[in-house]
Amino acid sequence: MVKVGIIGGAGYTAGELLRILIYHPHVELVFVQSSSNAGNPVSKVHDDLLGDTDLVFTDALSLNDVNVVFLCMGHGKSKEFFERNTLPSHLKVVDLSHDFRLKREGNDFVYGLPELNRNVIKKSSRIANPGCFATGIQLTLLPLAANNLLTGEVHVQAITGSTGAGQKPTETSHFSWRNNNLSAYKIFEHQHEGEIIQSLQQLQPGFDKEFNFVPIRGNHTRGIFVSAYIQFEGTLEEAKDLYRNFYADHPFVFLVEKNPALKQVINTNKAIIYLEKHRNKLVIISLTDNLIKGASGQAVQNMNLMFGMDEKTGLNLKPVAF
Amino acid sequence: MVKVGIIGGAGYTAGELLRILIYHPHVELVFVQSSSNAGNPVSKVHDDLLGDTDLVFTDALSLNDVNVVFLCMGHGKSKEFFERNTLPSHLKVVDLSHDFRLKREGNDFVYGLPELNRNVIKKSSRIANPGCFATGIQLTLLPLAANNLLTGEVHVQAITGSTGAGQKPTETSHFSWRNNNLSAYKIFEHQHEGEIIQSLQQLQPGFDKEFNFVPIRGNHTRGIFVSAYIQFEGTLEEAKDLYRNFYADHPFVFLVEKNPALKQVINTNKAIIYLEKHRNKLVIISLTDNLIKGASGQAVQNMNLMFGMDEKTGLNLKPVAF
Amino acid sequence: MVKVGIIGGAGYTAGELLRILIYHPHVELVFVQSSSNAGNPVSKVHDDLLGDTDLVFTDALSLNDVNVVFLCMGHGKSKEFFERNTLPSHLKVVDLSHDFRLKREGNDFVYGLPELNRNVIKKSSRIANPGCFATGIQLTLLPLAANNLLTGEVHVQAITGSTGAGQKPTETSHFSWRNNNLSAYKIFEHQHEGEIIQSLQQLQPGFDKEFNFVPIRGNHTRGIFVSAYIQFEGTLEEAKDLYRNFYADHPFVFLVEKNPALKQVINTNKAIIYLEKHRNKLVIISLTDNLIKGASGQAVQNMNLMFGMDEKTGLNLKPVAF
Amino acid sequence: MVKVGIIGGAGYTAGELLRILIYHPHVELVFVQSSSNAGNPVSKVHDDLLGDTDLVFTDALSLNDVNVVFLCMGHGKSKEFFERNTLPSHLKVVDLSHDFRLKREGNDFVYGLPELNRNVIKKSSRIANPGCFATGIQLTLLPLAANNLLTGEVHVQAITGSTGAGQKPTETSHFSWRNNNLSAYKIFEHQHEGEIIQSLQQLQPGFDKEFNFVPIRGNHTRGIFVSAYIQFEGTLEEAKDLYRNFYADHPFVFLVEKNPALKQVINTNKAIIYLEKHRNKLVIISLTDNLIKGASGQAVQNMNLMFGMDEKTGLNLKPVAF
Repeated sequence: MVKVGIIGGAGYTAGELLRILIYHPHVELVFVQSSSNAGNPVSKVHDDLLGDTDLVFTDALSLNDVNVVFLCMGHGKSKEFFERNTLPSHLKVVDLSHDFRLKREGNDFVYGLPELNRNVIKKSSRIANPGCFATGIQLTLLPLAANNLLTGEVHVQAITGSTGAGQKPTETSHFSWRNNNLSAYKIFEHQHEGEIIQSLQQLQPGFDKEFNFVPIRGNHTRGIFVSAYIQFEGTLEEAKDLYRNFYADHPFVFLVEKNPALKQVINTNKAIIYLEKHRNKLVIISLTDNLIKGASGQAVQNMNLMFGMDEKTGLNLKPVAF
Repeated sequence: MVKVGIIGGAGYTAGELLRILIYHPHVELVFVQSSSNAGNPVSKVHDDLLGDTDLVFTDALSLNDVNVVFLCMGHGKSKEFFERNTLPSHLKVVDLSHDFRLKREGNDFVYGLPELNRNVIKKSSRIANPGCFATGIQLTLLPLAANNLLTGEVHVQAITGSTGAGQKPTETSHFSWRNNNLSAYKIFEHQHEGEIIQSLQQLQPGFDKEFNFVPIRGNHTRGIFVSAYIQFEGTLEEAKDLYRNFYADHPFVFLVEKNPALKQVINTNKAIIYLEKHRNKLVIISLTDNLIKGASGQAVQNMNLMFGMDEKTGLNLKPVAF
Repeated sequence: MVKVGIIGGAGYTAGELLRILIYHPHVELVFVQSSSNAGNPVSKVHDDLLGDTDLVFTDALSLNDVNVVFLCMGHGKSKEFFERNTLPSHLKVVDLSHDFRLKREGNDFVYGLPELNRNVIKKSSRIANPGCFATGIQLTLLPLAANNLLTGEVHVQAITGSTGAGQKPTETSHFSWRNNNLSAYKIFEHQHEGEIIQSLQQLQPGFDKEFNFVPIRGNHTRGIFVSAYIQFEGTLEEAKDLYRNFYADHPFVFLVEKNPALKQVINTNKAIIYLEKHRNKLVIISLTDNLIKGASGQAVQNMNLMFGMDEKTGLNLKPVAF
Repeated sequence: MVKVGIIGGAGYTAGELLRILIYHPHVELVFVQSSSNAGNPVSKVHDDLLGDTDLVFTDALSLNDVNVVFLCMGHGKSKEFFERNTLPSHLKVVDLSHDFRLKREGNDFVYGLPELNRNVIKKSSRIANPGCFATGIQLTLLPLAANNLLTGEVHVQAITGSTGAGQKPTETSHFSWRNNNLSAYKIFEHQHEGEIIQSLQQLQPGFDKEFNFVPIRGNHTRGIFVSAYIQFEGTLEEAKDLYRNFYADHPFVFLVEKNPALKQVINTNKAIIYLEKHRNKLVIISLTDNLIKGASGQAVQNMNLMFGMDEKTGLNLKPVAF
């Protein structure tokens, strides 16, 4: 059994991690830390977990009692955590914040997108779990980058659900505002752009085309709908071959022949990819659940890889479908 | 022209009042007060009013320049307002809070439900505008009370939209929580019960049956769906006659023959009433828009009456329908 | 391994059964019958099951190759099925239609509500799976009936999601109509009333109080929110004891202390029960997912019981939460 | 008074026309034709119009009794209508189908986008009312085309509500499917592309850049959210000047400084335009209500122009806001 601790256990991504890990066959949940909720049952905060767990939030960090910790604190907080704590050398870490996603001097975290870095992840002990938009968008482009086929500007639009913005109530997460509403934000300036470009350049060094990204707030709770397109000179069949080959042994990515809809992936760790060719453009749709493949499910997928388990262990989740 | 001032202009009910009054043919909007927004254009806060008005929020109360003020501050604030301000004697007041709805020594406000008190409202200068639940629920019961037919326990369930809870973001107004969700609250203890009983007793003195009311938070934005039932010995046709007669000259209340749906009244000042008889019970459905017939539309209806205008003036609103 | 066949595999309840059974550790899915889809991959119709199963719909009924069949055809069709087919004597049946729920001469089906009939279910080979409303409502009343405490009229309102009405597109399932909308239907006349009364009388013979039930169409997809109340002379604590005792060894029913919300149970087989006492009335809230505890999850729970497995096997489902 | 007839009165666009025209101060509604509903009250089909009109659907076409007819039949039906009927020479026509939007030999309809063709519309008697996507998209691009500034590829994504797909229930309009869902359709192949290009070329003859358009089905009922971008060498201020000038005397188009949200325009005839500049790209957002500015409101706007009335007459509609 892998012994697991969760740090920052009261937020959305921690809740989702708990929903997955509680029934993971090779995991023992040792502690769930939350300063604000220490002493409360986990199922009091994540109240859908009633009957699934008797765990109680703790404020203590029993880092010596676990094999891996998931860091689910806000952005910026993971870095602070490492400044304040010295971790046991055996301890593996999966960080769900953006603090360690970008490569730089002294950052020994591996970017935890299994479809890009699986072999390195397997040997790593520190994983920077990708952002939700970043996951959905990279999956539309990696097979092209792997073949040096990002030869023109990249055009991306992505629509995200309300859980992507976290649990703190705000004006744009107010039901009266958001129901039946849509708005764009951080147009061409989303903070996930950095990690996306970094991955594309990892596969296609020298990639320097413009990356045009319009993020949209949707009026749904879960899921990211990405539509991307780029100049592509081959045929649709050639494109499909590229994608099929690239994702051949990646069990969560599905290339579909029929134009898909977002709810096909909700409450699962799947990513659905769909291609069309028009004129000289290849259009790529990707669908993911932002809290699972875009966050906590991917974190578990990374943990599975780090501990030599089958990637899918504990991730055969019942889709919600409706 | 009736010269109008609005006090507490930044909230939901004030916004809705503005949406109605701006195109009211006999109203001149003189000022819209808001401490927190003084100096800002009204259309910056109520941003759907762009192009509809050039009004700017003010912090000054030009009470001598208007014929009527609408008080749209939070509950408790209207009472404070009267303690701090001396109003010109000519000035009429429509208060949208619950501060003056209950009769008591020294309270000279008339309860502003036109279907109950129209003739008194016409001669009044101070109106306590009813609560949204209270409006929808009273409309299901008044014709019975008027005929002393509240002879058994009253059973009421009502489902309200998120705008009923105001614009302050809270846990239960968070889109991620409320979308596709339902919950009950203040079961048998809702604060509107007082004004409902008061009105029922006005028509049927001595009414003392149990009043069982389960309020539900729905996952829609606007509208209150009330289902009520009570023991009734007559036939369905007799019940329909009672309701038809009671509402005969009330232009916003419609008795329908076909089981209705909430969106038929949304964005209008209408109330739809529907009856069924089963065994010895009369079931009464009422549908209203909580922000219009349940708040600001009714406030305008009251103003119309106070100033001798046709009740419907300015209230022929385009339904949203979808 | 229990060998399973599904008959009528293209509808909502069959889809939900498949989502659960595919990862049930002791089930082998042998065939999924659908006349209209014979030859198509199951994941083409239930397209969220992509990658979860390679099953293909068949038109053949290999009844000798399975231990149990689930009948997921429309109401009335199960009866026809039995008229046209002779079943192998070893074959167990779980019928999800209403065809065999009511006791009558020659009907040897057991009513499959484990919280009512668990011991009988364990020894049965034919189960009539309860209706969704019926499940949610019975759970609010059974502990009282078991103690002969249904001493007054029963008052029930229940709000159901759109999946309760099946997958055929209709006027009231049209998104443009249903979004943000509410309506009542079959007031005091819902077809589930028969099975509810039958169960109440099983526990409290002679129960003959009026049963007042207002069903509401909600604008959500999954879940049934029941609020019920009845005269109750004991204290709240006494009521809680009754419910706690009655459900003590039923693993899917949870009595909660905090007023709950529907999404706590969505995508799970749980039922949440919440009690309040006001005046001489006991108010009981129950929350269930109409497609799981109200249909396919309960069908699996029944199968587990019939085959001597732990009731929860395969039913530790990840809640969707948002 | 302008005497008005509506042909094809039972659909969404006719319902919306009725909601507007009933309170239009200079319109007399003479007849509303519907074969399938002849003899029924209009408010039986458009049941939110209860109390607003006593009109009854007719099957007769009293073309001599009206000054203008609105054709609200399905696409293709308007052409058939003209083949079967000879219209009185005085009769003006506003056609809401796509049958006459594209210029070709013998088509004497004027394309009814007032922001493009107002002066011609004023003198016309036959108007082809634009498509909903086409309206929202053209408004993002016309000011550039008017200045020959469409110098690069055009990138457009637009998200539409369920009312855009009409009232016939289908798989993708089923609430269980569409709630919380998203999907793309007719990618790069939407039928509105023709009329958009035609208008762009009217202002910028020779425009032949690629037009990349991804239409998305959103999970809302009303409204089209367009995000477009194109290479633009000027500054943001220069762009704003271009747009401000182009729309200076068009009362329904608003250039806003703050990133807007779709519900600001719902239930109004407004179009909101918002600009950002990033690198060498100009991003343009437009928001419209597909049933009003994208259909029936624009049809009324065209009628107003044809009859010499102020463009806004009857179109000061209360926004729904929430």
